[in-house]
Amino acid sequence: MVTGDRVQLRAIEPSDAETLWRWHSDPEVMRWMDAPYPPSLALTRKRLEERGPDSYGNLNLMIETLDGRTIGIVALREAEPEIGDAKLDIYLGEKDTWGQGYATDAMRTICRYGFGKMRLHRISLTAVAENEAARRVYEKVGFVEEGRMREAFRRDGKWHDKVIMGLLEDELR
Amino acid sequence: MVTGDRVQLRAIEPSDAETLWRWHSDPEVMRWMDAPYPPSLALTRKRLEERGPDSYGNLNLMIETLDGRTIGIVALREAEPEIGDAKLDIYLGEKDTWGQGYATDAMRTICRYGFGKMRLHRISLTAVAENEAARRVYEKVGFVEEGRMREAFRRDGKWHDKVIMGLLEDELR
Amino acid sequence: MVTGDRVQLRAIEPSDAETLWRWHSDPEVMRWMDAPYPPSLALTRKRLEERGPDSYGNLNLMIETLDGRTIGIVALREAEPEIGDAKLDIYLGEKDTWGQGYATDAMRTICRYGFGKMRLHRISLTAVAENEAARRVYEKVGFVEEGRMREAFRRDGKWHDKVIMGLLEDELR
Amino acid sequence: MVTGDRVQLRAIEPSDAETLWRWHSDPEVMRWMDAPYPPSLALTRKRLEERGPDSYGNLNLMIETLDGRTIGIVALREAEPEIGDAKLDIYLGEKDTWGQGYATDAMRTICRYGFGKMRLHRISLTAVAENEAARRVYEKVGFVEEGRMREAFRRDGKWHDKVIMGLLEDELR
Amino acid sequence: MVTGDRVQLRAIEPSDAETLWRWHSDPEVMRWMDAPYPPSLALTRKRLEERGPDSYGNLNLMIETLDGRTIGIVALREAEPEIGDAKLDIYLGEKDTWGQGYATDAMRTICRYGFGKMRLHRISLTAVAENEAARRVYEKVGFVEEGRMREAFRRDGKWHDKVIMGLLEDELR
Amino acid sequence: MVTGDRVQLRAIEPSDAETLWRWHSDPEVMRWMDAPYPPSLALTRKRLEERGPDSYGNLNLMIETLDGRTIGIVALREAEPEIGDAKLDIYLGEKDTWGQGYATDAMRTICRYGFGKMRLHRISLTAVAENEAARRVYEKVGFVEEGRMREAFRRDGKWHDKVIMGLLEDELR
Repeated sequence: MVTGDRVQLRAIEPSDAETLWRWHSDPEVMRWMDAPYPPSLALTRKRLEERGPDSYGNLNLMIETLDGRTIGIVALREAEPEIGDAKLDIYLGEKDTWGQGYATDAMRTICRYGFGKMRLHRISLTAVAENEAARRVYEKVGFVEEGRMREAFRRDGKWHDKVIMGLLEDELR
Repeated sequence: MVTGDRVQLRAIEPSDAETLWRWHSDPEVMRWMDAPYPPSLALTRKRLEERGPDSYGNLNLMIETLDGRTIGIVALREAEPEIGDAKLDIYLGEKDTWGQGYATDAMRTICRYGFGKMRLHRISLTAVAENEAARRVYEKVGFVEEGRMREAFRRDGKWHDKVIMGLLEDELR
Repeated sequence: MVTGDRVQLRAIEPSDAETLWRWHSDPEVMRWMDAPYPPSLALTRKRLEERGPDSYGNLNLMIETLDGRTIGIVALREAEPEIGDAKLDIYLGEKDTWGQGYATDAMRTICRYGFGKMRLHRISLTAVAENEAARRVYEKVGFVEEGRMREAFRRDGKWHDKVIMGLLEDELR
Repeated sequence: MVTGDRVQLRAIEPSDAETLWRWHSDPEVMRWMDAPYPPSLALTRKRLEERGPDSYGNLNLMIETLDGRTIGIVALREAEPEIGDAKLDIYLGEKDTWGQGYATDAMRTICRYGFGKMRLHRISLTAVAENEAARRVYEKVGFVEEGRMREAFRRDGKWHDKVIMGLLEDELR
Repeated sequence: MVTGDRVQLRAIEPSDAETLWRWHSDPEVMRWMDAPYPPSLALTRKRLEERGPDSYGNLNLMIETLDGRTIGIVALREAEPEIGDAKLDIYLGEKDTWGQGYATDAMRTICRYGFGKMRLHRISLTAVAENEAARRVYEKVGFVEEGRMREAFRRDGKWHDKVIMGLLEDELR
Repeated sequence: MVTGDRVQLRAIEPSDAETLWRWHSDPEVMRWMDAPYPPSLALTRKRLEERGPDSYGNLNLMIETLDGRTIGIVALREAEPEIGDAKLDIYLGEKDTWGQGYATDAMRTICRYGFGKMRLHRISLTAVAENEAARRVYEKVGFVEEGRMREAFRRDGKWHDKVIMGLLEDELR
């Protein structure tokens, strides 16, 4: 368990399958993400049952409120020890918790963990340019907009730009 | 979940086995399709339990009415990214829902999804020439009859022609 | 060995790898075909070494002149015994043999074999619409144009139509 | 074989092992790349012997001058058909060919191939910011600098920025 | 069962999964250990179900009070028969049992077992330098501080030294 | 190739089998090392042919003089990215090269590589206490004696102490 001010991060359990499937099936939640093909509950369950332990290169943690309600997921992926960089993914699947600071605290908690325990030097993420709510959260914890990849996202037949943001180890706020 | 006006499309679950087996066992439903050998329920179940996730090249979705009744199945198969074409299959297994616009809406929904999310350029299908009800549905959403393959279908010892129909990405109605 | 008037058809040998690789690397030969990514000779060799025996559903034969020069390849694919149909592919890789009746005789030979030995009822093929030389060959042996699939082929960034042609078992000339 | 004005692109062969190993062992060639641990010739050979065919998602081609001298390698990786984007990697291993326009032509040739045959919409690449010679080549063929990832590269104990560049399908010059 | 004065040591059972997972999730328990990424209960269970029998080179035993309450774990790892040395790991996961002599007795019991049954000549362990409570326990049973590895432990972004301690076969008290 | 002032480090090749086997068979060379059971040349060869590529956690390089004579081997093992430490092993198998500064330069070269490319924080090694020639080399490049593991080495029926030495990333000389 990795504990922040408003959230705690815990390992994924197979019993999270139904929750994850519900989030993946919710178009509002998936709006700015690379939506998978409609997922089956059975395959979501199987995937969780078969996944190996979290590791330096692939860390996925469920976001819980401090009283134990599971509200989202955060990941650090593709960490490379020689460069000390990793990619961050985050979303809150429970829409009634949006806009209350949970994502901000989850971001701070996982980044502190990445720089502290994992000795990362840099964490980066991408966000669809229109997704301003997310970008504000990322900026609040210190992420700097480093570029704009033109037409690198597609939703409903239209292209969107993605911004790339980065956070160095002494920039976390 | 992919949502249309009258139907929604969702992933296949192992719990659909009994429904699919019932449809496959119904000669009226299978009348104009390449009927499989009589299926066992156990093998239908096993096949669903072992199938992998849907993907660019093999997408199969159950058709539900908006209130969640499972009534049919639709598929986009053999998509090739270099050409951007795929083959469409569809049928409604629940006979009491025939002729009420569900198939038309499921066609529109999957085609919109194929052109939008998957960047397809062309969707094609074949239909037994005598199956005029189906052909009317396909034409309603914009499919154009492109040819007639002579004696390419066989049922009860007799040959039938099949029509081939195509829909380009700007032709969906 | 299946023998015609001007050509004979024989099984593929691993020693054909260099020849096939040379044909696959020749843009003139591949002009109207779904060109693979540039093939390596090593993988071509490996693929031939590992391929299983020819069968009802997948028959590939090298075309030789009667004096044993290997000049092309012909295939019957996806044969389904219940319908008795299969798909034909053919090309001559040695460009100096084009236009001398070898392809026509190879077509007649393989179709006679398909209807005779394999009890096929129908053989079909597709051709890029602009490829008029090929279409004339197919018509000469009896294939009938059955339809035109719009924009189903792509070469150098442009779409082309494909014609679909069919031959029933009593139509071979 | 994919042919440009000054270079041609061909599949990798196991016999390229010694050449690739020599390039990977040359610090000048690897200067701005994520250098692997010192490679053995034996493992380079084994890796080439075991690699599968090139495909939509992983395409690697050797760069040859028009008279058949192998001088470099170019790759399109991680192509996703739904978004139509891919990542480009290129380098010339033969240092006496630097600065003569071969890289520029190889870039144009692979991009034309990616947009044409593969229906890509966007090609992106990253370059270490100090590597100005490479960036000039990329700009010459139309790549636009879209961002600067701070301290995302490490060489000899020092961090360097990387620029990210993108090219949309109508921007190739 | 290996029995001491205040504890007994027994094999790990799959039914210990929930207990181990609870200990691993407790930051106070893991404070001076190389903490794993937050573990899932499901993977802890799977790991226990799949582990093989204990052996000369890898011995892990649960520590129980004499009335059968499971309170910790002790291990002898990497035993090499030619040198007769092994590494010891121990912790008590039930915090209400700390400071009551259980760890001291478990240490004595496993070392006696190692020297007696396993013919070890030397047992060594490492401890974070700040962890004085643990070091006192180790000294009490005879371990001698042999060195101090500078900055060989990292917690919360800070480096800590580790002491290395050794016990020879005639030094156990 | 990693280049120092007097040596260069390169990947191991299967063709090194005979050399390694000769070194492993030389009691003078193996005097202060954990000597393996008498090795067969055939198994040495097989082991080299089957080993995978070097990686962050297991890096083994042959030491060559600058004119290409293979004289020894150096390794960084068990690197852990969260702590940034690794273990170093080194020996020169060609006895006529002893005492001429090759080992010192190989140590400096691999440590610079470990701190620079691999972002290590700490490198440690152990040496049999009597092996004063080796210890002088390690101290010359900056290693600090951190402890003495009593009776942790055995040769010819007698116990010897081993010293443990550590080098932090700013201590390399």
